[in-house]
Amino acid sequence: MKDKWTLLTSHVKFTDRILKIRHDKYLFKKNNSEKDYTVIDTYDWVNILPVTEDNRVILIKQYRHGTREDVIEIPGGVIEGKDISPEVAARRELLEETGYSSRDFINLGTIIPNPAIQSNKCYIYLAKNAFKAGNQSLDPQEEIDLFFVPKKEIASMILSGKIKHSLVIDAFCLLMLYDGKEI
Amino acid sequence: MKDKWTLLTSHVKFTDRILKIRHDKYLFKKNNSEKDYTVIDTYDWVNILPVTEDNRVILIKQYRHGTREDVIEIPGGVIEGKDISPEVAARRELLEETGYSSRDFINLGTIIPNPAIQSNKCYIYLAKNAFKAGNQSLDPQEEIDLFFVPKKEIASMILSGKIKHSLVIDAFCLLMLYDGKEI
Repeated sequence: MKDKWTLLTSHVKFTDRILKIRHDKYLFKKNNSEKDYTVIDTYDWVNILPVTEDNRVILIKQYRHGTREDVIEIPGGVIEGKDISPEVAARRELLEETGYSSRDFINLGTIIPNPAIQSNKCYIYLAKNAFKAGNQSLDPQEEIDLFFVPKKEIASMILSGKIKHSLVIDAFCLLMLYDGKEI
Repeated sequence: MKDKWTLLTSHVKFTDRILKIRHDKYLFKKNNSEKDYTVIDTYDWVNILPVTEDNRVILIKQYRHGTREDVIEIPGGVIEGKDISPEVAARRELLEETGYSSRDFINLGTIIPNPAIQSNKCYIYLAKNAFKAGNQSLDPQEEIDLFFVPKKEIASMILSGKIKHSLVIDAFCLLMLYDGKEI
């Protein structure tokens, strides 16, 4: 556990527009060995699960360059320097990506996307009674399709693999638990 | 969507023991602009949710160098070259990390940890009726504590943030849906 590890050195090995790669060298006191661990530093993220008054979830679809495919997601993005809180980032991203807003943002939880190799967090919000408040306001390289799915159809979309984005599935799990469902 | 993007060039910018960073340059045909996207290539992963005959979940705790803390997880790891299938990797990782096995491995789903910037997949297995089959067999730099938690206590562990690892929460979501629970 934590008390067995002493950080010896930390060196940034690579930096680009969105991430930094560090090599952290640790002493593992249990057997006095040393090893380098790779850590990815990047922005904290925010994901928003917008549900309309008539129980439809607002999903988005966009091309994702990591897996080179169109991916079904919920709105979300990085928490930028100008965002004074994760909730402000959530409100901004929801409005920019969908044109929708909500008077009722609820933090469903804060998760760690991959603690083995990433240092960042992801804040997950429920946007209850989401309503149309404007138009999409996308970056020049963004193209995002919206669609509205009755909440009761989401389970089969996850089971069939139509929804397969880890952080999106997390949001639906947190919603189920928030609603009092048992594992 | 996908038909609007043409990959122009792909360059590996950084490589280490566990990952590769690529910069993929795309033409976005909608407005004829070009942009570099960062992609992290790493192993595919496997996570295993072991449940004993008396409905206890086998959780593990280990120090994670990304977030620099002890993290509660389910067993899992990378799919190595020697693994002839994800299920073989799941059986191997469960046995190595816990000393437990199962005659009933069920693929609950295959998810994408982060399609925006990662190319890999994570296969999630339920190991039903997990039983003790041997002892832990850890790498020299691994230290993994096991503990057994009644399944009905997991929800409060997630809601309280004790369990906050994204891929672990995914496994519990898939288990709930596999068991027929509704969102």
